[in-house]
Parts: sequence; structure tokens; C-alpha cells
Amino acid sequence: MGITPTLDGLEVTWIKSITFMIKFVNLDCKSKVMKNIVYLFILFFALLSCNENKETPALNSTTTDNSDPLPSWKAGKTKQAILNYVSEVTNEGDKFVPIMDRIAVFDNDGNLWSEQPMYFQLFFAIDRVKELAPQHPEWKLKQPFKGVLENDMKAVFSEGEHGLLELVMASHGGNTVDEFEQIVSNWLKTAMHPRFDKPFTDLVYQPMLELINYLKANEFKVFIVSGGGIEFMRPWVEEVYGIPRDQVIGSSIKTKYDYNDGNPVIRRLPELNFIDDKEGKPEGINQYIGRKPVFASGNSDGDLQMLRWTNSNTLPNFKLYLHHTDSVREWAYDRTSSIGRLDKGLDEANEKGWTVIDMKNDWEVVYPFELKR
Amino acid sequence: MGITPTLDGLEVTWIKSITFMIKFVNLDCKSKVMKNIVYLFILFFALLSCNENKETPALNSTTTDNSDPLPSWKAGKTKQAILNYVSEVTNEGDKFVPIMDRIAVFDNDGNLWSEQPMYFQLFFAIDRVKELAPQHPEWKLKQPFKGVLENDMKAVFSEGEHGLLELVMASHGGNTVDEFEQIVSNWLKTAMHPRFDKPFTDLVYQPMLELINYLKANEFKVFIVSGGGIEFMRPWVEEVYGIPRDQVIGSSIKTKYDYNDGNPVIRRLPELNFIDDKEGKPEGINQYIGRKPVFASGNSDGDLQMLRWTNSNTLPNFKLYLHHTDSVREWAYDRTSSIGRLDKGLDEANEKGWTVIDMKNDWEVVYPFELKR
Repeated sequence: MGITPTLDGLEVTWIKSITFMIKFVNLDCKSKVMKNIVYLFILFFALLSCNENKETPALNSTTTDNSDPLPSWKAGKTKQAILNYVSEVTNEGDKFVPIMDRIAVFDNDGNLWSEQPMYFQLFFAIDRVKELAPQHPEWKLKQPFKGVLENDMKAVFSEGEHGLLELVMASHGGNTVDEFEQIVSNWLKTAMHPRFDKPFTDLVYQPMLELINYLKANEFKVFIVSGGGIEFMRPWVEEVYGIPRDQVIGSSIKTKYDYNDGNPVIRRLPELNFIDDKEGKPEGINQYIGRKPVFASGNSDGDLQMLRWTNSNTLPNFKLYLHHTDSVREWAYDRTSSIGRLDKGLDEANEKGWTVIDMKNDWEVVYPFELKR
Repeated sequence: MGITPTLDGLEVTWIKSITFMIKFVNLDCKSKVMKNIVYLFILFFALLSCNENKETPALNSTTTDNSDPLPSWKAGKTKQAILNYVSEVTNEGDKFVPIMDRIAVFDNDGNLWSEQPMYFQLFFAIDRVKELAPQHPEWKLKQPFKGVLENDMKAVFSEGEHGLLELVMASHGGNTVDEFEQIVSNWLKTAMHPRFDKPFTDLVYQPMLELINYLKANEFKVFIVSGGGIEFMRPWVEEVYGIPRDQVIGSSIKTKYDYNDGNPVIRRLPELNFIDDKEGKPEGINQYIGRKPVFASGNSDGDLQMLRWTNSNTLPNFKLYLHHTDSVREWAYDRTSSIGRLDKGLDEANEKGWTVIDMKNDWEVVYPFELKR
């Protein structure tokens, strides 16, 4: 595929629109409208659901040999800090942490899989509107749908908050959790990431898969704590990360049980339930887990409250930030990015001595497919 | 202790008040006000919280020998139905259920521990108001607090919904989750059940502890799904049931993260978040677990939607109702009880062939302390 590693080289019309949108976003980055748009990205995330049965082992998880549980991590202080912490808290001594307290929490977008050029769930939302369009001929004439159908993201965003909210409700609501699970699963089977031309679930980070497995092997209970939609994640996290779906916390919409004449269903309502971002992360951790983590891993300012909450644990704890520094293999962004901004968090990590992953220099490989080369 | 096994024989003033309240409830049972009062019982339940670190194995869990995993269950069709189901779904065959799908859900009040003469959490609420009274001299003159302080439950209930809500907010709000955990833990150490003069956590059902352990041994993941307050249960369920606190679903109030000048806390707000009863149970299961159970155990009409939801699983599934038929060792109540009413559920269980435990005849012992005699 002749796709260059930067967005500039992309030629397909649809991709051009996305690129335009991203540029638009960057241009207008300091305005209040932009702040609201970023907030609404999270709304998009909140609107995804599912409930199905599937038993699947973790894919892409490298079998680690005994000598190195983290083979895709380069030797250095980051890797050593992780190894030291896990060793200290699992061996009897003054830093020992009982198994029941070994709670590890991981952000998802930009932390376990990529989040550029926009949150993957937003690709889903756009595709979903296009898929539903034949049932809504009125959308051809009505913004923000018209903009989506004509790949005119400028028109979409010019509708402001209200327009984006309309898009979200139309693309994610009005089905049961079972139906939604199927919709997400089907989408993941065919949708391709524009830069890599690979399924989105191929763009998970190999070193993080190894870290999850390493923690699990040391009897940590690993949870995902993401701003993304809880029911957008559940259909695939077991297969991709090896994390059970009841160990996923995310943003959600309200649902309603319906007896449905003896065939009970849970319906998804177009009403926000919970935003699992910033302050919402410790609140969600308390609501779902009921115990303060000892290990927290994130990549943006939206994870800062979760890391602070973990840092306040009286037991020995570990805070990990992933810094996107690799413009060649992945992306390089931090303090000014409208998606996954890492600014205050980076300052606090440096100030408090939290561990920061330098993606470019700390990771031997980024994606699992690099291993197969 | 000269306490007879029926309420009529109780003599202590405080107990008399409780008895009066129960009678009052029964007298007025068909009125709309009563319906609201029962609803408000659930509000009480919603208001309890905590977050602390403790590693504790399941107490009271009888070591089962290889020949009989359920020694406190009498031989008979109920016990056999449970053994048959677990055997069928865990051995390869057309009824096999993959491990990841082995989700079991248990109601708590009246199902894992007793719920008479009133929900144990309501004893906590009343004690809490009394404990806080010195800081609120105005309560001596103000209902419903005056009623609680004077053990005049009639006066309390005559205040109606608003009064009970006041009681709930005053007795459960205004602290952090850590503080609330400590309050609940301390209460459980000293509070005694009026009939048995034992700690409330002694009044768990030995046969159900064995069932939980049996399911866990067969790689079921066991969750509590209770109308009770999630943060009222979490401080003790690990120790008493051997169920991790992240596998507890219950009613909850809203919480708010506060950075608190570098000492982050989660504060409990006097605002309802979620009622985990009736339709709320399948909704809660979807929200927390994200997968339909194959095994559901309850004791009241409030569990019916959870059992129906489980019954709609395409995998082989098991629905279990506990029928309180033992007026000597525990209590006997069903269709007309204001607490733990089992009416529609009993009809549906009979109609659909769900398994119903006859407490009096199916259980060798009820409480773990009977084993020590």
C-alpha cells in the first residue's frame, strides 16, 4: 500500500475529508467551540453497547520466555522500573502487596491501541451514519448528516454541539445491547484504518499486551478504564487483550430492560449515563471496582485523576504514562494535540517521578504485526 | 438468651418498636403510602459506601469433601438439580458452557443472609442516626429524627416518603467512601441482630456459602446482584462470602472525586445514582458484567427480572428461588410479606419449572453457627 506514514501523503477522497477535519480542528484549537467538540468526541464514545457469549483467548500476546516477560521493551530505566515494582510487591517484604489489592487499571485509547488521526470509535460513528442513511432519505438535505454523507466534515462541525449530539444519537441509539454488539463486531471485521490499511484491532500495542500478561501472571487483576464506550469495547477486549468484559469500565448511555412479551431485551436509550474521563475515572473505579488501584497506566491529561487516585494509595503503587514520541512507527504528539493531549500530566509525572514511556526509544516494536515481518 | 424464635415473644422496648413498625407495615400494606415506604427501604439501601484494602479468605465456608460439595443440603430433587446442572455444563457434551460464560448471580438480602424482621441495612441506618444525634440537637424536636431517637417508628413512618428520605440522607451522606467503609466495618463489629443476639454477618446461609464455593470450584465467576447498597456490602463480602468486591453490584448514590489539595477523596453525594432492583437487576448486570448469566439465584419478586433475563440465555441455564418456609430456624414468609415478597416469582417458577428451595426441608442447617453446636 502506497500510504506514507504521515497524513499528508494520503490521497483517497474520504481520507482527504478526515485530514481536512483534523486540520480544521487544529486551526480552531483554542476556541471554546473546539473545547465543546472535544467534549462531544467523548459523547460519541459513550454511545456503544453489546452483550453476547464468546470464549476467546488473548490474541497477539507474545509467549514470553522465562528470562524476559517484556521482550518488546528495550532495556532501560522504564522497563527496569516496571520489573522492579512488580518484583518488590510480589515478593514477601515491606513492599509486599496482597493479591486482592493488586488492581491494575489501563486507559485504552492511545494507551492500549492507537487514537490517531481520531478516536477509532469516531470512525465507527461516521460509518454507522452512512450505513443507516438509506433508511433516512431526509439526511441528504439535513445537517450534520448531509456533511457526513458528503464527506464534508467542516459542515458537520459547523453545526456545533447540537449537530454532533444528533449524529451520536442517530448512529448509536435505537437498538438492543445484543444488536449493538453484533453491529460493532461486524464493523470491526471489515473497517480498515486509513493509514495502515489494517483492521483497527491490529493497532494495539505489543509492549502493552506483554505488560498486561506480565501483570496477570503476577496475580494482578487488570481492568480497562476508558473514556470510550463500554459497549463498544466489550465485543473485542477479551479476544484482543485477554481482559474479561466485566473488567471493562467506560462511558455509557442509559439502558432499559424490557420484558418484550417473554423475550427480554435491554434497550439502549439516547441518554447519557456516565462519562468515564478525568474525574469520572476515579469515580468509575470506585463504582465498578470498589478498591483503589496500585498500578495505573494512561497517556493523556484525561488519565491524570486516575493516576493521582492511584498515587494516593497507601500501598506501594506505580504510575505509568505513555508519551507518544514516535512519528515514524506511530504518531508523535503531546501538549497541543486536540486528541490525547498530554500536558499537565507530563508536568506532574516529571515533578513526581512517575514513569514515562518514551515510545520511540523504549519500545522495540509498536504493533504486533511488526513481529511477523 | 430468652428470645423466642417468633417476634411475638420479644420484650425489649426497642424491639417492641420494631415489631410495632412491622405490624404497622402489615396493617397498611395495601395503601399507596406503603408502596412508597417499601420503595424508600430501597433508598436506604442505596446509601452506603466504602473503599479500603483488606485481603481475606472466605470465612464460614465449610471445607467440602470430594464426595459431597453441598453437605448442608439434604438429599432430594433441589440438591440433585443443582448437581446435575453443574455437572452437565462443565463436562464436554451438548450442554457444555465455556468458562468465560459461566456467570452466576446471587441476590443478597434473604438469599445469602437473612432479611427479617427488616433489611439489615435499615438497622444500620437507624443506629447511624442515633450515633450522629449528639451533633444534631435539633433532631430531638424534629421528625423523623425524633421518632428514631425515641424508638417511635410509627412517628417516623407517619412522616411519609419525605421523612424517610431525610433519614437516609442524614444517616448515609456527607462522608468520603473511605470514611463510610470504616463506619460500616465498625458497625458490623458491634451491632447485634435482635432475635439471635449475634453479629449480622453470622446470619448468612451455610448452604449458600457451599453453593458459592461449589460454583467457584467449577470455574463460575460469582457476582452479588443486590438491591442493597453496593458500598454497604463491599466492606465485608470478601471475608464473609469469598466474593471479590469488584464482583458486587448494588444500589448506589452519586459520588464525586475531589483532588482535595493533593489528598484525593471520593465524596458521597446525597443523590441517588442507581436502584438495583427489579428491572434494575438485568440493567445492572449489563452495565457491570456485560454478559448474560447462566445461573441466577434469588428469593423475591425483586429478583424475577434477573431470573427471566438468565432464562433468556441461549446457553443452558439455571434459575433458583429460595422459598422461606422455616419459621423455627429462620422465618416463613412469601406472598404477603412486605419485605422479600415472593408471589409472582413463585407462580412463574412453578409454571416454568425453575428450581425452588424449600428452606425447611432442603437445608440440613441454615446458619454456620449451627455447625458448631
